[in-house]
Amino acid sequence: VIARLCVIGIGLIGGSLALALRRAGAVEEIIGAGRDETHLRKAVELKVIDRFELNLARAVKDADMVVLAVPLGAMQPVCAAIRDHLGASTILTDVGSAKQGVVDAVQAAFGEVPTLFVPGHPIAGTERSGVEAAFAELYRGRRVVLTPQPHTAPEAMKTVRSMWEHTGALVEEMDISHHDRVLAATSHLPHMLAFALVDSLSRLDDCDKAFRYAAGGFRDFTRIASSDPVMWRDVCLANGDAILGVMAHYRDGLKAIEDALVRRDGERLFDIFTRAKQARDRFMRLS
Amino acid sequence: VIARLCVIGIGLIGGSLALALRRAGAVEEIIGAGRDETHLRKAVELKVIDRFELNLARAVKDADMVVLAVPLGAMQPVCAAIRDHLGASTILTDVGSAKQGVVDAVQAAFGEVPTLFVPGHPIAGTERSGVEAAFAELYRGRRVVLTPQPHTAPEAMKTVRSMWEHTGALVEEMDISHHDRVLAATSHLPHMLAFALVDSLSRLDDCDKAFRYAAGGFRDFTRIASSDPVMWRDVCLANGDAILGVMAHYRDGLKAIEDALVRRDGERLFDIFTRAKQARDRFMRLS
Repeated sequence: VIARLCVIGIGLIGGSLALALRRAGAVEEIIGAGRDETHLRKAVELKVIDRFELNLARAVKDADMVVLAVPLGAMQPVCAAIRDHLGASTILTDVGSAKQGVVDAVQAAFGEVPTLFVPGHPIAGTERSGVEAAFAELYRGRRVVLTPQPHTAPEAMKTVRSMWEHTGALVEEMDISHHDRVLAATSHLPHMLAFALVDSLSRLDDCDKAFRYAAGGFRDFTRIASSDPVMWRDVCLANGDAILGVMAHYRDGLKAIEDALVRRDGERLFDIFTRAKQARDRFMRLS
Repeated sequence: VIARLCVIGIGLIGGSLALALRRAGAVEEIIGAGRDETHLRKAVELKVIDRFELNLARAVKDADMVVLAVPLGAMQPVCAAIRDHLGASTILTDVGSAKQGVVDAVQAAFGEVPTLFVPGHPIAGTERSGVEAAFAELYRGRRVVLTPQPHTAPEAMKTVRSMWEHTGALVEEMDISHHDRVLAATSHLPHMLAFALVDSLSRLDDCDKAFRYAAGGFRDFTRIASSDPVMWRDVCLANGDAILGVMAHYRDGLKAIEDALVRRDGERLFDIFTRAKQARDRFMRLS
């Protein structure tokens, strides 16, 4: 049981973690921190947190565990603000979806990466954001990836692992660059494609009229384009190289379809679609 | 009430239409036709159709309404096979998602487009295919677009409209080229993008391992990549120009994101993502 948990950033991810730990009886006191007082008051009303602090130094005081659940671009300033106020045994972790970027931010703020810092990433979410979107079940059965550094303290790893297990998540460890490449392929790139599609369609004439004729496939395909623009801008800035890598690979794949369309090459199209369908059906069996 | 309905192609679309009309009491006898006897036997077992015919000439004999629910590439040979066996008052309609291609196929098979032919397109579906995937509720609240020709008989329009209304669908009329452009943008292009993504990821090393870390966003985004390859090859061949048009537009949108990523231009990325989110949120309110 964590006696005092401080979650910085009470949105979908931070709020759902607080709710899940509360329900599991895995925490005694939850302090929420952030910049927006109205938002934090709402979080208290919704019983997501016990109380809040706008001052980060006070927020982390005497905390046993501090969770950074802010957009990636806010990691470094937040770390700089809490650096001199963490207890000697306070464990620090985060939820960012691009791990090297977070480690770099922590390093820049602390001068070195603390041994009690555990980079973490719950692979879960919805297109909604804000504390109103938080729910205790978000992490049940989902994977949480921890990407420890060589000098990360084993007891910090153990505590963070245990925290996530209380939410019902499956916790795994992964090499940091492997994590960033895998997430670029399976999460960051699809978000780029969905944003690009909706943005390009929105600039067509008669866009709203066209949207009226869109079916369930379009709704599902574009769901992730409703995601938080700040969060995704920051993911792009933190994991740009890996995203560009898979994007180039994707562009080649799209070009193959385009070429086959130009040539009206039905056989080639059939082969591509069949391979994609087989891979996607395999994915569904694996997941 | 349709006394004798013949549905050629008893898959998700044709089967769901049969189920919906049966349930609405809008049809007396349903004859299923197709090439695969095992599949048609299954359709009888599932009570989707009353009986089946493998011979298309016999299937359409004395039918009041014939629905072509085969992939676009099969439209012309099927029309050629039924041409001399339709009754003088038999109404013919189809469910293809690219209307000019169907009209061309009908024209080629009949020598002219019959006045009792009504091009139609139910904008509904799932990524599943085959009669086992059919369900009576598929069309409830969904749009069905009819794209009549100048000489299409008003009474044929009325009967086809009434048939779809019995399934719970909202029936509209649209200009054929407008339909094909709108569907290229909101349905055909998203399918291409999803096929391209899954296909390109499937050629990465460690693909299956990467899939294990994909979350709900990926699952939804790629759902349509599990669609039937034959159907989608035929859509590409029938509506290639319109698809290439929106694909070029999309490529520009993706390029803008790529360029911003290369420059690490956070402001530009934020603008694109914000515009996309607003358009997508607007789509959800419209749909």
